[in-house]
Amino acid sequence: MIEQALIDDRAVDLGDANLTELELLAERSGINLADGHARQVLTTSQQRIVEGLAELFQEAQRSSVPRLDRQAQTAFLTALGQRRAVACADVLTCYSSSVAMEILARSAHAVGLRRVGLIHPTFDNIPDILRGIGMRLVPLPEELLQAAGPMSDVDVELMFVTTPNNPTGTVLTEDQLARWAAWCAARGVVLVLDTSFRGFDPRAMYDHYAVLDDAGVQWVVIEDTGKLFPSLDLKTGFLAFARNLCLPLRRIYTDILLGVSPLILRLVVALSEDAASGGLASLHRTISANRAALRTTLSEPGLGHWPDPDNRISVDRLALPPGLEATTVAEDLRGRGVQVLPCPKFHWASPTDGERFIRVALGRPEQAVRQGAEIIREYLLEQRGGLS
Amino acid sequence: MIEQALIDDRAVDLGDANLTELELLAERSGINLADGHARQVLTTSQQRIVEGLAELFQEAQRSSVPRLDRQAQTAFLTALGQRRAVACADVLTCYSSSVAMEILARSAHAVGLRRVGLIHPTFDNIPDILRGIGMRLVPLPEELLQAAGPMSDVDVELMFVTTPNNPTGTVLTEDQLARWAAWCAARGVVLVLDTSFRGFDPRAMYDHYAVLDDAGVQWVVIEDTGKLFPSLDLKTGFLAFARNLCLPLRRIYTDILLGVSPLILRLVVALSEDAASGGLASLHRTISANRAALRTTLSEPGLGHWPDPDNRISVDRLALPPGLEATTVAEDLRGRGVQVLPCPKFHWASPTDGERFIRVALGRPEQAVRQGAEIIREYLLEQRGGLS
Repeated sequence: MIEQALIDDRAVDLGDANLTELELLAERSGINLADGHARQVLTTSQQRIVEGLAELFQEAQRSSVPRLDRQAQTAFLTALGQRRAVACADVLTCYSSSVAMEILARSAHAVGLRRVGLIHPTFDNIPDILRGIGMRLVPLPEELLQAAGPMSDVDVELMFVTTPNNPTGTVLTEDQLARWAAWCAARGVVLVLDTSFRGFDPRAMYDHYAVLDDAGVQWVVIEDTGKLFPSLDLKTGFLAFARNLCLPLRRIYTDILLGVSPLILRLVVALSEDAASGGLASLHRTISANRAALRTTLSEPGLGHWPDPDNRISVDRLALPPGLEATTVAEDLRGRGVQVLPCPKFHWASPTDGERFIRVALGRPEQAVRQGAEIIREYLLEQRGGLS
Repeated sequence: MIEQALIDDRAVDLGDANLTELELLAERSGINLADGHARQVLTTSQQRIVEGLAELFQEAQRSSVPRLDRQAQTAFLTALGQRRAVACADVLTCYSSSVAMEILARSAHAVGLRRVGLIHPTFDNIPDILRGIGMRLVPLPEELLQAAGPMSDVDVELMFVTTPNNPTGTVLTEDQLARWAAWCAARGVVLVLDTSFRGFDPRAMYDHYAVLDDAGVQWVVIEDTGKLFPSLDLKTGFLAFARNLCLPLRRIYTDILLGVSPLILRLVVALSEDAASGGLASLHRTISANRAALRTTLSEPGLGHWPDPDNRISVDRLALPPGLEATTVAEDLRGRGVQVLPCPKFHWASPTDGERFIRVALGRPEQAVRQGAEIIREYLLEQRGGLS
């Protein structure tokens, strides 16, 4: 009864739902290949860490919280190749990357920034938070960000880039980052990166902080442990920023939190050390195997194609066969017991462009990906039959 | 070195610091009687729960997250006497009560609400978040909220009351709540309660949801597990609201989070069940003993007085002897190794009124309270000598 009531009172209009509302629905039933949280099986060494949670609690109890906080930041950032961060960044540990995002947006608004250039497409809670705070958004297509030619004259005060991008997996290379950092520095534009998916892709593990620091730009980087470690969403976001940054991040931060649980900090230290000593490589194998299972299952002609062949992050896009619309496909698949995300909301400036794509999460047990892929395959085969 | 760098780069101007910045300083050294988080010793049964964290992790892994979410809400709210909540409230589980506060403020602003009546004094992150979002605040003195006479004509669109109030412990009685709920209902004013400290005071455990539901007012209640359970800030805030509420809370919520860790939800279930079966009574004894230790140590004439004799929550105010200012006293005490909060920032509409008070946290091991009180006593004795 309680479960029924819950579902009733959380009913949402699917057509109007944001991506997180669709993800919430996906948590309730069937095979959830919707949200991008880490839900793969714990590795043996991660399992051992989790089995020691009671001891980690005791250790955290005895520790200095500021020291543990800095240890978590350092362990995570260095595991992901961000060695300069420790030297050049102030870092505020947040409950999540979205809370870091909210603090960033509120701080930028507080000093009068309004015009934001934002990568397109990207996960919809980024444009939704920015708009909700009162920002005016200018779409920055991925192609523009990657172009080698002369820099387009974009009139913005803040530039926001998700790299690797969600859902495409597109990575801003070191050269591209250096160019945009110089461009922002010359114009007094604040450059913000969301690197939550960094840990999946070695090409995104060059030292971004060194590039940003050397460029002398005003910069902010949002990091996230939650996409990598399947620790039941015991996670942190990190809001890292240049020491000379003109935004009141610390003040807005302390309006919202005193800090993150020291047990979570201790757990992040342990999981990051594990990541550095083999855990990341293991994660890459898991995601790669799941991606291969998905793509192989859907490899027959006429079932769509894979628009992001180089994508390494824990989600994958399928471009649907002509004639199919993602919103309908996702709803049909939900009816068959598998949850994926339709992509219109990712294309926040031109939603209909997203109707060609669905997004499938890969941070899952391989069996779930295989079963989900099989259901998607059967559905698309039927559609192909119906369309031909 | 890292620790040193941390302290340096987090240096704050004490005169301008908000209360959380002062609490952050307090985490670093000496006896921390500053923040209102639960830092008392775990009870035997709480210790047993924590020792089972690895098993709780496994249970949470196997559970339906929406079901666990509802279980945590129900267990906590019923343990605190809020039986109608399950029937009449939608509840969104947040990382913390401050994140719930941020979501509330953003949602109210999104529908054009601007004039907010806010209890005075209260913890400064409430006015800071509301002002940061763009609200105009009208102070509602505690005496006004408790007056039995005709209702003052306050011109507001939203009314925000912390009960029990922080730092005074003042509780809105059932009659007073019913009157203000009727007043708000008649004027179309949204009534918001922050009841984070409810669990310390049986007088605040009457069923607020029944009163609000019966009044037919548009209401929101922010609840918090973090003030009660010394679980190293593994906690949740709950954003509970009337089913017919005119604010887009769910939409803003899903911009910021998908949900709270199922391990934390499972832990909140266990701690709430323990609270219902003796844990709350034990907590009340602990806080009462710590309050008695503080007040007894500072009972000599000329060391100030206790302006909130009926206060039962986990902080206590000391009214300083004439001639002393709280900002200076708190800074002097920090120099002697004990951290307390000066009260000017609580008096957000008239900070100088707060210079008469310091706030001492009681959710600590009794030994810490005793040692801290002893240092405060010696300091005040010296001051008395110097002043006389």
